[in-house]
Amino acid sequence: MIKLFVLVTILGFSAPCFAANEVYADGAECEKKTVELTNNAQKTIDIAVFSINRRPIINALLKAQARGVKIRFLTDRTQIAASKDPAHVEDLMDAGVDVRVHTRRALMHVKMAVFDGRTVSGGSFNWTNSAVARNYEICTFFVDDPDYAAEHEKIFEQLWEENNEERSEDWLRSRGRCGRMPFLRS
Amino acid sequence: MIKLFVLVTILGFSAPCFAANEVYADGAECEKKTVELTNNAQKTIDIAVFSINRRPIINALLKAQARGVKIRFLTDRTQIAASKDPAHVEDLMDAGVDVRVHTRRALMHVKMAVFDGRTVSGGSFNWTNSAVARNYEICTFFVDDPDYAAEHEKIFEQLWEENNEERSEDWLRSRGRCGRMPFLRS
Repeated sequence: MIKLFVLVTILGFSAPCFAANEVYADGAECEKKTVELTNNAQKTIDIAVFSINRRPIINALLKAQARGVKIRFLTDRTQIAASKDPAHVEDLMDAGVDVRVHTRRALMHVKMAVFDGRTVSGGSFNWTNSAVARNYEICTFFVDDPDYAAEHEKIFEQLWEENNEERSEDWLRSRGRCGRMPFLRS
Repeated sequence: MIKLFVLVTILGFSAPCFAANEVYADGAECEKKTVELTNNAQKTIDIAVFSINRRPIINALLKAQARGVKIRFLTDRTQIAASKDPAHVEDLMDAGVDVRVHTRRALMHVKMAVFDGRTVSGGSFNWTNSAVARNYEICTFFVDDPDYAAEHEKIFEQLWEENNEERSEDWLRSRGRCGRMPFLRS
């Protein structure tokens, strides 16, 4: 009996246990949780999101940047080029957020963020007005789960390195089609 | 000491523990796992995927259908209308798969499946050639996790009911632009 108990205990701990996971199928809830995690971040936020134009999320990122959180933000070139309102990316850059653009022909279709190396957001949810207010989306949040976060950080680092600063800035200078983008001012 | 041990054991079990979770940032791996789960399904597969045109996944679904797995497949109207090769959806319908089309203006942008009510796939990964062979994607698999699966089944049922059979078939009859679709044969 004791042996069985110990065995079960070991299994209980060796299985990956998450402190909390949350699943939403509602854009407004996805946004609310994303903003909450951004507001609560203390050290780092690493973001790889295909598309972004949602002001409340951008504002939360700007506030996080202002209080010293180190933010790395990767988005896809097609979305910057297509956006009618690129001011969000310009605002992030102006505020000193480390912005890179995925410049390869293949889409960077990922939608994930890692907050403080502990909490992961993911799913189908882009950080856009459509995703928040119109589409049917699923977003998932794994809160306080360093192991799961580490898996995602590894993926993020690869994406970040593939779009190194030089490559990303070259594209911003040569290919941007967005009037208010800083690279078109010079 | 015994008290502490018991307490820790209870915490170990009361936290949501997953038997296994797998994260891939590689389209080919995402496809491989999706096909494997489809091949291993014994009773049900509930699918809500924005876009599908990937033959190996479709073939696995057809095999599952042939061996008696009850499949419900929901996809978005815009993707059916835009697809150059809609034969995959026609094949699923011809084989008796319960296919519905999300016909609301808002996109059904979700990418999830629940296998046997126990295992969930999700992430940014559509079941398409682009997603498998070209894009950067993240897919997640929660294997043998009935609680997590139940959360996703609930979301699926809502989507399925919103696009009830009558509504879905009306759209297929009136709006389809795909030459080989069965509704245009009649």
